[in-house]
Amino acid sequence: MRAHPDGNTAPELLALDWGTSSLRAFLMREGKVIETRHSAHGIQHLPEPGKSGFEQAFAQIAKDWLQQWPQLPVVASGMVGSAQGWREAPYVRCPADAQKLASHSVAVPSGLGPEILIAPGVLFDEMNQLPDVMRGEEIQIAGALRQNPQWAAQCSIVLPGTHSKWARIENGQIVDFATYMTGELFAMLKKHSILSRLMPEQAERKSEWDTAAFELGLATARNSGPGDFTHQIFATRTLGLTDRLSRSALADYLSGLLIGHELVSGLAQTAEISNVPLILIGDTALCQRYALSLNFLGKPDCTLLDNTAPAGLWDLAHAAGLLDTSDSPKNSRKQ
Amino acid sequence: MRAHPDGNTAPELLALDWGTSSLRAFLMREGKVIETRHSAHGIQHLPEPGKSGFEQAFAQIAKDWLQQWPQLPVVASGMVGSAQGWREAPYVRCPADAQKLASHSVAVPSGLGPEILIAPGVLFDEMNQLPDVMRGEEIQIAGALRQNPQWAAQCSIVLPGTHSKWARIENGQIVDFATYMTGELFAMLKKHSILSRLMPEQAERKSEWDTAAFELGLATARNSGPGDFTHQIFATRTLGLTDRLSRSALADYLSGLLIGHELVSGLAQTAEISNVPLILIGDTALCQRYALSLNFLGKPDCTLLDNTAPAGLWDLAHAAGLLDTSDSPKNSRKQ
Repeated sequence: MRAHPDGNTAPELLALDWGTSSLRAFLMREGKVIETRHSAHGIQHLPEPGKSGFEQAFAQIAKDWLQQWPQLPVVASGMVGSAQGWREAPYVRCPADAQKLASHSVAVPSGLGPEILIAPGVLFDEMNQLPDVMRGEEIQIAGALRQNPQWAAQCSIVLPGTHSKWARIENGQIVDFATYMTGELFAMLKKHSILSRLMPEQAERKSEWDTAAFELGLATARNSGPGDFTHQIFATRTLGLTDRLSRSALADYLSGLLIGHELVSGLAQTAEISNVPLILIGDTALCQRYALSLNFLGKPDCTLLDNTAPAGLWDLAHAAGLLDTSDSPKNSRKQ
Repeated sequence: MRAHPDGNTAPELLALDWGTSSLRAFLMREGKVIETRHSAHGIQHLPEPGKSGFEQAFAQIAKDWLQQWPQLPVVASGMVGSAQGWREAPYVRCPADAQKLASHSVAVPSGLGPEILIAPGVLFDEMNQLPDVMRGEEIQIAGALRQNPQWAAQCSIVLPGTHSKWARIENGQIVDFATYMTGELFAMLKKHSILSRLMPEQAERKSEWDTAAFELGLATARNSGPGDFTHQIFATRTLGLTDRLSRSALADYLSGLLIGHELVSGLAQTAEISNVPLILIGDTALCQRYALSLNFLGKPDCTLLDNTAPAGLWDLAHAAGLLDTSDSPKNSRKQ
């Protein structure tokens, strides 16, 4: 790490990844994370309701840092900028990049000195197509492109999760994207539907992943026609009733089916650019499951990235002019 | 109604349609319902748990009838024959007709004198295809074919609902079928998912059906490719966020999307027999919505039938030899 002239390694940015269920704070310097903190105070789990809940959550995670470095710029992304957030940062339209996100960010007083600059989400809203929204993922995408500028010309970025996102990138911009409710549907079907009936309780489940059941789900998705989804999920029950799958494997069939459907649709949407890089961002285990599934479906070459939100928030701060220009991405990549 | 020689019009059958959430009892004569009773004692809502709960529910709905006509044969269909029912009547395999159902029915003492003959469900279980099950619908199908023997040679029968069934009929037999979780998914998504957030509370909803929103759902389904479902449902949220649909219309978009997906898939499965009759059985309002949707998707010619379970139970009783043969379907249709 490059030392400051005074020999200090003071941070240059406090970056917040503030979602529905958690808050992550990154102390950053020269584009790199030097310290990370985590709190359960997602915007739906604040110490108290309302704006003061945000102030308290922020103070709990960052007060001592800001006492030590009162001039530290602070940026944030995620649901903290939603209509239910600390201050709403309205969606910007595609095409969008870090510069556009920065110019449409909104500032909110933090209660601890510095303002917090909150990034907007991104809206895709074209005639004759279904609209779509993201909030938080656009910063992860910016981070991926900052760390890998060779992809900026053209790539597909997939962020698996509760609401998976498939984004198409051209010239460093998000040009369009689609959300798949894969994770939420999986959790909901396992918890609230008839499909849960034959599944063992969590405590009784074997811990291993049943690859054959998962791949049956993938293969079923691969062979599906339009509209088949609501039929194929019912097989989670009938494969158990007929003892074709063990009950402990039923959730893996459902997981394979849901991920398979997302991939079949996502790959079809990006078929005309199937030779461009495909990047997976997010939880490592989940991204590995997606990579295995992509391989099963005939798409073996993809790249996995861990959390790129800090890099994206650094890029946002840079685009917003909050950083010393000597710490531009180009310089910091030399470190 | 034909009088008995003694001038009486005594019933010839007590038929029970006994599902998860309700119990319907039909007093029948010459293939026709002469009295109907309804109780909320579905198999998941019995007066008390266990077998005595079934006896009590049956006594409450039928005791006076059986006191008056102690020799009345009793037949039943639906979840009462499931593993969680009064007595399990294991599934029979496709192809299946009333004769096969009758020969695999199981008898249980009623506690009131006569035994109750419980119909089995039907299993579709072929190599390299997803298995499927029905329980209760096979009796409705038998009833439809009894009332309309001209369809028995070949037709498609659709039973919309929580778990919609699409059955292919040949030579009076159910040769294969598929379940679609349309109704359950709709209810679950409206209640438990993020899609419910923008929907008004039930009490605040306008009562009219938003045809344009429903047809947008149908058109979206019609234009879908494999795997698109979990993306397209997310638009229930984004169409509201972008004010393309009013919030009170969002549930109608979701309904159209779900029904549309079922129809697109079901019609594709029956495409090679698209010239055979298509019959809808069930709740009139729901069947009308399906008929409108089929018309929207280019399939204008279908027939709607109301509850055909009594006719199917009559057919079951006849096939089981419980009825005076002079009341055969052929004779009773002359009435």
